[in-house]
Amino acid sequence: MAIDIGGTKIAGALVHPDGTMTAATRRPTPRGTDPEAVMAAVTDVIADLSADPLWERAVRCGIGSAGPVDTSKGTVSPVNIGAWRDFPVQERVTAELGARGARIPVVLAGDGVAMTAAEHWLGAARGHANALCMVVSTGVGGGLILDNRLHAGPTGNAGHIGHISVAFDGEPCVCGGRGCVESLASGTAIARWALAQGWTGPDPTAAGVAASAAAGDPVALAAFDRAGRALAAAIAATATLVETDIAVIGGGVAASGETLFGPVRRHLASYAALSFVRGLRVVPAALGTHAGLIGAAAAAMMLTSAG
Amino acid sequence: MAIDIGGTKIAGALVHPDGTMTAATRRPTPRGTDPEAVMAAVTDVIADLSADPLWERAVRCGIGSAGPVDTSKGTVSPVNIGAWRDFPVQERVTAELGARGARIPVVLAGDGVAMTAAEHWLGAARGHANALCMVVSTGVGGGLILDNRLHAGPTGNAGHIGHISVAFDGEPCVCGGRGCVESLASGTAIARWALAQGWTGPDPTAAGVAASAAAGDPVALAAFDRAGRALAAAIAATATLVETDIAVIGGGVAASGETLFGPVRRHLASYAALSFVRGLRVVPAALGTHAGLIGAAAAAMMLTSAG
Repeated sequence: MAIDIGGTKIAGALVHPDGTMTAATRRPTPRGTDPEAVMAAVTDVIADLSADPLWERAVRCGIGSAGPVDTSKGTVSPVNIGAWRDFPVQERVTAELGARGARIPVVLAGDGVAMTAAEHWLGAARGHANALCMVVSTGVGGGLILDNRLHAGPTGNAGHIGHISVAFDGEPCVCGGRGCVESLASGTAIARWALAQGWTGPDPTAAGVAASAAAGDPVALAAFDRAGRALAAAIAATATLVETDIAVIGGGVAASGETLFGPVRRHLASYAALSFVRGLRVVPAALGTHAGLIGAAAAAMMLTSAG
Repeated sequence: MAIDIGGTKIAGALVHPDGTMTAATRRPTPRGTDPEAVMAAVTDVIADLSADPLWERAVRCGIGSAGPVDTSKGTVSPVNIGAWRDFPVQERVTAELGARGARIPVVLAGDGVAMTAAEHWLGAARGHANALCMVVSTGVGGGLILDNRLHAGPTGNAGHIGHISVAFDGEPCVCGGRGCVESLASGTAIARWALAQGWTGPDPTAAGVAASAAAGDPVALAAFDRAGRALAAAIAATATLVETDIAVIGGGVAASGETLFGPVRRHLASYAALSFVRGLRVVPAALGTHAGLIGAAAAAMMLTSAG
């Protein structure tokens, strides 16, 4: 059983041992300040799933949530769901499942960790014992596979590559840090930098800048080059620290394809210089829109077996 | 049984289950280009150890070596021992031990990983399930404890924090990378920067700069502030990536005490901003001159039990 909690929707499905999904359902994420309104949407999703004949065969439930999460407490405080601060989603979901006869383990994971579990189970990181998986979108998130295990860390936040600094003398980031990858390479950052350099276009987003770059616009190309350098530095730093041999990148900005991957790969050798990281590869994510649900299920599987 | 291979000396000892050492011995590391001359010094150390009555009770042998190492092949290519390139030290030591009746597992680890094992076993990282240990000296090295295990990585090089970039737009590093921590925060880098800024003193090394900083010299203080910022960024990046909650720093530059630790701690909050890394602590290493030998033994213990 998989539940995916995000800023715009709350989704659920039954995920089978081969990775296929049935009974998929969703609700819009309620706006406003009432934590119970958001929980009511989660409960509606659970009610939909419980109507499926396979409901009683579920062996565990994975919750993937926008972060930050605290898996040591079972709580979430998603940046984009203001009504939930330290919300005890694990306990509440456990109770809702129990009320419908499903007394199964409930595992909580951040969305970057869940996406990583999905890519390792069925996607581009399959077969890699040590991998970094990333989402480059409005923000930058990620997760780590180390020694074939999902390395979530004590509070479930490991893999937060968007908030490591690759510019210790750089600009402040919204997180309170300085020179963070997200502040240099997110879609938001790419569009902001291009506009500040005088770029104009009908679509003032990273997608618009990507379209201009694909058409040869020098400022748009420079914007992706800069983002690519920051990502290359961060990917190389991760490989140098923990010996990951592959970086998988998904998310909206990665959908621009070579516009992003070209600069990342071109600059990788400038940061991954030691012998043991020279074989480092960067590839696109393989799973698309359902990565959140598959990831929630995969994280539950990997974290249960590890625990 | 522990063997510590460095650029100036090759040391050996029998390390007991409580961390005490006996039969300690050493040889100078031969200069020149003959790999067998260096191996002969290792063999002399082994011969000394084999004369001890406790020799036959050794259950495993740990080799800690200057890096890079390749534990997947059992070879080492120490930067500061030019005669050894891809030298099969694990196989050669196994043979020397066997010739003296000791048919025991031989485990190879890089010196940063070995120092980390020592600090986790008996030093400042004891009791920490997730820790970064570093040596800040002529260069900058390190290792990681994750989930109470020594995370050495597939080739034994994980924890190479000296060669992650904290300045993606920064200066080239000797490794071929750019903006590496070592190029900003090693003793060599501190002295070089201070001299370039006009600092003068009787001892043109990091120790000399540290003495000046302790006496209030503004350029010397600025040199340590800059190194401290680079280290803080790297320590925070590691914690953000893998959820380490403590960073242990040893090595010659760390011996300057608050001259280094003050700036590192002062700047940590500028890079460790997310909730789950705010409790991150930075402390001095607890083990002194014998960390190499204790670490070789500890790494053999931790990597054998993990394997």
